[in-house]
Amino acid sequence: MASKRRFKRGLFVGRFQPFHLGHGDAIKRLLEEMDEIVIIIGSAQLSHELDDPFTAGERYVMIKDALSELGISPERYHLIPVPDSPMHSVWVAQITSYSPPFDVICTNDPLTKRLFKELKIPVENIAFYKREPLSATEVRRRMLSGGNWRELVPKSVAEEIEKIDGVARLKELSQTDSPFGRRGSSKTL
Amino acid sequence: MASKRRFKRGLFVGRFQPFHLGHGDAIKRLLEEMDEIVIIIGSAQLSHELDDPFTAGERYVMIKDALSELGISPERYHLIPVPDSPMHSVWVAQITSYSPPFDVICTNDPLTKRLFKELKIPVENIAFYKREPLSATEVRRRMLSGGNWRELVPKSVAEEIEKIDGVARLKELSQTDSPFGRRGSSKTL
Amino acid sequence: MASKRRFKRGLFVGRFQPFHLGHGDAIKRLLEEMDEIVIIIGSAQLSHELDDPFTAGERYVMIKDALSELGISPERYHLIPVPDSPMHSVWVAQITSYSPPFDVICTNDPLTKRLFKELKIPVENIAFYKREPLSATEVRRRMLSGGNWRELVPKSVAEEIEKIDGVARLKELSQTDSPFGRRGSSKTL
Amino acid sequence: MASKRRFKRGLFVGRFQPFHLGHGDAIKRLLEEMDEIVIIIGSAQLSHELDDPFTAGERYVMIKDALSELGISPERYHLIPVPDSPMHSVWVAQITSYSPPFDVICTNDPLTKRLFKELKIPVENIAFYKREPLSATEVRRRMLSGGNWRELVPKSVAEEIEKIDGVARLKELSQTDSPFGRRGSSKTL
Amino acid sequence: MASKRRFKRGLFVGRFQPFHLGHGDAIKRLLEEMDEIVIIIGSAQLSHELDDPFTAGERYVMIKDALSELGISPERYHLIPVPDSPMHSVWVAQITSYSPPFDVICTNDPLTKRLFKELKIPVENIAFYKREPLSATEVRRRMLSGGNWRELVPKSVAEEIEKIDGVARLKELSQTDSPFGRRGSSKTL
Amino acid sequence: MASKRRFKRGLFVGRFQPFHLGHGDAIKRLLEEMDEIVIIIGSAQLSHELDDPFTAGERYVMIKDALSELGISPERYHLIPVPDSPMHSVWVAQITSYSPPFDVICTNDPLTKRLFKELKIPVENIAFYKREPLSATEVRRRMLSGGNWRELVPKSVAEEIEKIDGVARLKELSQTDSPFGRRGSSKTL
Repeated sequence: MASKRRFKRGLFVGRFQPFHLGHGDAIKRLLEEMDEIVIIIGSAQLSHELDDPFTAGERYVMIKDALSELGISPERYHLIPVPDSPMHSVWVAQITSYSPPFDVICTNDPLTKRLFKELKIPVENIAFYKREPLSATEVRRRMLSGGNWRELVPKSVAEEIEKIDGVARLKELSQTDSPFGRRGSSKTL
Repeated sequence: MASKRRFKRGLFVGRFQPFHLGHGDAIKRLLEEMDEIVIIIGSAQLSHELDDPFTAGERYVMIKDALSELGISPERYHLIPVPDSPMHSVWVAQITSYSPPFDVICTNDPLTKRLFKELKIPVENIAFYKREPLSATEVRRRMLSGGNWRELVPKSVAEEIEKIDGVARLKELSQTDSPFGRRGSSKTL
Repeated sequence: MASKRRFKRGLFVGRFQPFHLGHGDAIKRLLEEMDEIVIIIGSAQLSHELDDPFTAGERYVMIKDALSELGISPERYHLIPVPDSPMHSVWVAQITSYSPPFDVICTNDPLTKRLFKELKIPVENIAFYKREPLSATEVRRRMLSGGNWRELVPKSVAEEIEKIDGVARLKELSQTDSPFGRRGSSKTL
Repeated sequence: MASKRRFKRGLFVGRFQPFHLGHGDAIKRLLEEMDEIVIIIGSAQLSHELDDPFTAGERYVMIKDALSELGISPERYHLIPVPDSPMHSVWVAQITSYSPPFDVICTNDPLTKRLFKELKIPVENIAFYKREPLSATEVRRRMLSGGNWRELVPKSVAEEIEKIDGVARLKELSQTDSPFGRRGSSKTL
Repeated sequence: MASKRRFKRGLFVGRFQPFHLGHGDAIKRLLEEMDEIVIIIGSAQLSHELDDPFTAGERYVMIKDALSELGISPERYHLIPVPDSPMHSVWVAQITSYSPPFDVICTNDPLTKRLFKELKIPVENIAFYKREPLSATEVRRRMLSGGNWRELVPKSVAEEIEKIDGVARLKELSQTDSPFGRRGSSKTL
Repeated sequence: MASKRRFKRGLFVGRFQPFHLGHGDAIKRLLEEMDEIVIIIGSAQLSHELDDPFTAGERYVMIKDALSELGISPERYHLIPVPDSPMHSVWVAQITSYSPPFDVICTNDPLTKRLFKELKIPVENIAFYKREPLSATEVRRRMLSGGNWRELVPKSVAEEIEKIDGVARLKELSQTDSPFGRRGSSKTL
């Protein structure tokens, strides 16, 4: 029996540093329009940087636990880490090579839209519940400043971050003299 | 309620070019001893080479379909593509960074055993049903020579390979003058 | 019959994001002193970034058309894209390996001068017609702010940029949440 | 006035180690069917290896001189070095990003044909005058064994190879203990 | 006869751009607690950038001369350049693979401490004589502004910097239009 | 007081997989003609491969111990690991950037000779005591076949190899199904 949804499989790309309630909300709404969703964990090679504190493996666990908490069946999503491409012009080809086939790209980003449109792939806008302050940047900012970051993420993401002592790691990254924090800091030994 | 199995989560690494019945058999037996298994799709960046014909995305689909065919629940495995590391000495660290935490490595390979043992991770041997001729090398050899490769792989893998016209691709890779086949061929334009 | 010009072949390196009237003027003057000029399209692997919006292929077309518009014969120049080197200390060696032999480097940049002088290659200063506001940074700034960028570039460059919808791409790069704009933006999904 | 040729611009990819009479013959015939040809110097980063002895710059000079000798106007071709991609699945995207737009790919290679066909780009077969023994492999074989390699290449290519002492370099590459020859030799210090 | 010192061999990582009196002081104090010290010249691939002006070879000479000036025997230290790792999560594994075995990591950096502690390697704090203004950042700042940088470095480091005309290089890096200075400057040709 | 030796500092490049008596003999003779020798540990990033079993750190220890055993003072040599360059044409520039300045290259290899001669650096031939069977290839061959490899290496090298269980590692590399041995083996899981 064929599904009545508009698309078979959509592609959703993020860095998820970390996964927050806005991501979860977006995925739920998108799954009303498509049978399955491919969630790409972008910049998979990055971790231990101020803007990218968590490893691909840590992000994988956070997302899988969060989707389970949100009641989304593992039959309906694919979770795939993909490292950055050294050439931006081949990024779409690289994503495509790591992913199962998809028939729609889910994004609000104007540039991403254009790049996929050139390949004749339909674009589906993402209806975020309330865009602000639901951003990973805001989550990390609150982690560093001692604010209430837990209210922005699913409970299971907060638990995983606590389990790996993630707030302390982020604070260390903001103070470090080591090569780890160099992109975010010009301090040197 | 705690599981009675010996391990919580095991790591199983392969290139799966393609996934065959031996892989499926091994995973089934391993899941008797552990709650979950992390299946790493190694050399994820490779495709369109004689020894590595399929993309990470194609292999992902083959494995997911095969495990479903074999009756293995998506709750019990994680399927994660990981590109090669330019330095073999950091390979274990790279795998670890892409994977959820694991408490046992599943391998018969003596070198892999040693490398993980140095990190104090237990090793679980893989009991292959019948090791020969169940190898991906043999599957590809039969594809090229017109032999019966279908009997060596799950039905869903054979279907996916037919869908992407995989046998023709492999044959083209064995004849090509292009840079694609260069590792396997010294012919030049 | 030997040429009466001072040099046989000069090397001129730029990123040409995009090629502007200052570049064209410089090349014309340099060709009074040398028989041929090698124009290196530097950072060839970059595109779709705020400071590097155009692909090597797009820049190649812009420059070739502009030089034709400026009446410079294809017999007198070589146009060669070269990607960045991961090690700056081998940059000169990499350029040399991609280029036909040259006997002078055309630059006003003090560091470039020194590096080539150490290899005993003569340096020729570039006499820009009027240095300000002829810079690619200014061209991109005007593109983003709606200023008159067309007056800073050859007509054929403006046409190529319009053909590929370059101004819209640049604006999208300034707003993007995707990995494309990350170097120029800290916004995240 | 519109051209009556079937294609506007074709893409022709090779390593040209070195450029030989078969290449020249193919380009001449292809230019009967298309206005312009983009000649990609593939594996541009390679040199000083047994199968890839010449730098991109040396190959650039050989080809430009050979095309001039063959009476092909610089208005009708583009000569562009492109390094290999670490991922074969993004090779077509990388070539496309370095090249001016093209509307046909010129190749006899079955795999290359398929990859471009998937992007809906027409394929034009290459009618080689006489395929054997016109191959770069044969040219290099004769260089190493003292055979008559000059009869296989345009006069200007032979001159350039002599100017850079290319035969001696190739012989040194076949004897070397250094890392340069390692792919072609298992000898070690 | 066994040493009475607490550790056999400690690891000390820095970029040493350039080596200053604080580094020398730290190494002297550390050698009271350990038999040997492995000094890793980090970011070895970098040079000719505003924050990383000197090559690995230049830094090697500066440090070896400085340690000789400070009366530290070559029997007691190892000086090893190591390039950056593209993945921060494998940095510890990469350092370990380039270094002789060590039983303590010498650092005040909270993140570095944590990463090595996870591998059960003890951490030794570095007692800097007076931390400010002894930093390489301050040395480079004074070089650019004409301040007294010589008082911050061992005499032999100052001599090496003068021999390679290092202050002029740094000033050129702060003014350059070339790709060399791009990370520190947004000026373009 | 100026030295009476012909050269100030010579460059000697090898992979040292492992360091053997021929290497030691060569260094002793070379030090009669030069004040200091820079020993480059080439292919530093490689390890755990059939032709490159040992890490840079392991090779560093072997060589330092061997030179001490041979009575060569640490004042007279520099021991520097350098990773391979992706472009062979920039290899000389990369070595130069990692090394202290040198005024002679010590090699019998015809290609290496030529490359350095082009930079006007004198070449010193290496007088090996007896070239055969003193090769690292022969040492590894005997390790695998159970032959007497110990007689080919300094005592301290044999001790280090035993300490790290190197013969077992090499044998595992020759049997492995893992990605580690792939260059030397076509076996797959």
